[in-house]
Amino acid sequence: MQQIDTLIQARWIIPVVPEHSWHEGHALAIHDGSIIDLLPAGEAVRKYRAEVSLKLEHHALIPGLVNTHTHAAMSLFRGLADDLPLMEWLNGHIWPAEGRWVSPAFVHDGSRLAVAEMLRGGTTCFSDMYFFPDETARVAADNHMRATVGMILIDFPTVWAADADEYIHKGLKLHDEYRNHPLIKTAFAPHAPYTVSDAPLQRVQTLAEELDVPIHMHVHETADEIGGSVEHHQVRPLRRLEKLGLVSPRLLAVHMTQLEDEEIELMARLGGHVVHCPESNLKLASGFCPVDKLVKAGVNVALGTDGAASNNDLDMFGEMRSAALLGKAVAADASAVPAATALSMATINGARALGIDAETGSLEIGKAADLVAVDLGGLDSQPLYNPISQLVYASGRDKVSDVWIAGKHVVKNATLTTMDENMIRQKAVEWGRKILASDA
Amino acid sequence: MQQIDTLIQARWIIPVVPEHSWHEGHALAIHDGSIIDLLPAGEAVRKYRAEVSLKLEHHALIPGLVNTHTHAAMSLFRGLADDLPLMEWLNGHIWPAEGRWVSPAFVHDGSRLAVAEMLRGGTTCFSDMYFFPDETARVAADNHMRATVGMILIDFPTVWAADADEYIHKGLKLHDEYRNHPLIKTAFAPHAPYTVSDAPLQRVQTLAEELDVPIHMHVHETADEIGGSVEHHQVRPLRRLEKLGLVSPRLLAVHMTQLEDEEIELMARLGGHVVHCPESNLKLASGFCPVDKLVKAGVNVALGTDGAASNNDLDMFGEMRSAALLGKAVAADASAVPAATALSMATINGARALGIDAETGSLEIGKAADLVAVDLGGLDSQPLYNPISQLVYASGRDKVSDVWIAGKHVVKNATLTTMDENMIRQKAVEWGRKILASDA
Repeated sequence: MQQIDTLIQARWIIPVVPEHSWHEGHALAIHDGSIIDLLPAGEAVRKYRAEVSLKLEHHALIPGLVNTHTHAAMSLFRGLADDLPLMEWLNGHIWPAEGRWVSPAFVHDGSRLAVAEMLRGGTTCFSDMYFFPDETARVAADNHMRATVGMILIDFPTVWAADADEYIHKGLKLHDEYRNHPLIKTAFAPHAPYTVSDAPLQRVQTLAEELDVPIHMHVHETADEIGGSVEHHQVRPLRRLEKLGLVSPRLLAVHMTQLEDEEIELMARLGGHVVHCPESNLKLASGFCPVDKLVKAGVNVALGTDGAASNNDLDMFGEMRSAALLGKAVAADASAVPAATALSMATINGARALGIDAETGSLEIGKAADLVAVDLGGLDSQPLYNPISQLVYASGRDKVSDVWIAGKHVVKNATLTTMDENMIRQKAVEWGRKILASDA
Repeated sequence: MQQIDTLIQARWIIPVVPEHSWHEGHALAIHDGSIIDLLPAGEAVRKYRAEVSLKLEHHALIPGLVNTHTHAAMSLFRGLADDLPLMEWLNGHIWPAEGRWVSPAFVHDGSRLAVAEMLRGGTTCFSDMYFFPDETARVAADNHMRATVGMILIDFPTVWAADADEYIHKGLKLHDEYRNHPLIKTAFAPHAPYTVSDAPLQRVQTLAEELDVPIHMHVHETADEIGGSVEHHQVRPLRRLEKLGLVSPRLLAVHMTQLEDEEIELMARLGGHVVHCPESNLKLASGFCPVDKLVKAGVNVALGTDGAASNNDLDMFGEMRSAALLGKAVAADASAVPAATALSMATINGARALGIDAETGSLEIGKAADLVAVDLGGLDSQPLYNPISQLVYASGRDKVSDVWIAGKHVVKNATLTTMDENMIRQKAVEWGRKILASDA
């Protein structure tokens, strides 16, 4: 018998690759942080002697969820200003609050709140864009969470950097610091076409090639953005990015609610990824991303929650469900964006967009053991005809019992093992009091 | 000091009427099943001596949720056939399964599953439409749940009735049986304009006036329905109902995804209610209900989950959130359908539509004590700037800890007190096995 770290038997194992498939009565063998086998449970117990052995009789075991667009620290602004027109929300509340409060301590505590919420809800990897990304990276690394942290860049000065040189310099420093980290990666994160000029975008493009990192950017979020670009640049934003050489398999274009058919074709041809944020798009009334058309054109579509200030949670189960439901309505086709596609969007597609699909995003031998156990034994999961359908349409993050990242058991019986939940909550309450007092 | 049954102190009490308001550090006094007082906690403990006293330090206390459109028994078909085009779903799966399986036992067990799920999730009242409504009524009555049960009517023969006479006869028998029941009411439930002819609709209209009951009907669910009506009746369905005298404060028009401005004006003028089912409309790609326009025109808009076969849960928290998010996108206005409006839709508006708003739907003195305690102490509810916003945008039914209906504590620490959860789950699993075997 072979000695291994962990053997998990589960009622259903849903590997995501191949899509639409699941195994019943199987087990997953984990050693040194990686998946080394997936086989019938009976064989597994004959073949492996595991230090830790689990039998999850009512659970589905799925790959860890990949939240491909976050502003983690903004969790401290969760619900600060809802139900307002976009510009009033930004100008009257979010920007003033950011101007007043964003600091290393704010980003540290906000990221910690976000990471705790994400872990509890089955998210094992996130792709972030915010100021003080060094703090966010540190929080993720300290708590054994996988993350791609954005080297943010914007034309105007902020508390993080004064100009393009400083943004890029600080970004590169961050990149160097985590160059060989097993869980933390970096990506360039130029904020949006309307907030970053051509010259810094060209530098980003060149540097991204050199460093071999993704480019994470808000693109075509609203109709206003399109109008502004046509006025100032005589082309729509995506065309401008294409001319600058940014539309490529490195690009994570977030939102994409405004798309003409030829732009979908352009993304497919050049291999850019779309990060769909259905709940943020709905809440800010940004528009509808044509997910079904993108998928059918062959574009890789990943999923993100956006920041908690515009969602207002970091719940990838909710996002999966919203993506599957909204995708059908937008396509006017009840067979569009089936449950298995939504699950792929929330896992392997995110990993692909981030260029880490050799490491995570599916339950395949050789990949890191990034896993989530979801309890489908409750009466609101009955009857169960199809576990993928149940996961997406009739389940929720409250069913997540256990989470592993690279083999480490970071959530055990719905309790965080690497973080002090009470302390994080208390810190968030304190920030809330201060921020509320100043939002008058 | 006055002796009462129950005194509940809660961090926040959200009465819903008036909208947008909440009380901090207050208490609700309950006696003989009714709310008799709402006052500061300090005064309450001096004024009342309660048999049961609760202090909910992290909770919001809200009115019980009213699920205004269900097909409860269809919970046994939850996830049987997802992601299919509408007609393939109906013709290939749902109708054959109904033809084969619907029986008093099926409706009994399915309704019990649905009632258990709804109670656990904070729903205290539902308005149902299905075959064997006598079984659904019995399940609700036996488990102390408030319900309005539909006297169903459809042009073709089913296992429940052979023709209009028998449908109406059986409906009236049900109405008589529950005439004086404190929790169970009845409504006429002609299925839809395209499945019920003019003559039976006219009888329903006359009888509804005589008995003083609502008329619960699917109306303008899809574009196909409109086309069919124009072809066969030379008018759109709502106009036909108007001519038949059915558009009135008795009418609960469910779905209403296809609406011209003059139809919105008609509903407002004649006082008909709309029951919005956002997740079902999305999942079946039926279209988008113009909720913001309806609300602004003065139409009362309630909320329903529809059956679990097209949702796939009976989660009114999810539905509230979906209604608030989708309502903004459809209106292209981030300030449309604010959180407080969504909460009203899920509570008082449902009660109004059902004509029971003197009894339930808000926390007002004199109304029945239909209450839900929602735990907002978790870290995913922090920081908390506005409890209504948090309830709608960053909470979920998993946060429901306690539920009371007419003062009876039906969910206690997230556990059903009137129902045997294991037995219900087991029954659902058994039905699932049989149904799956026959769905080949």
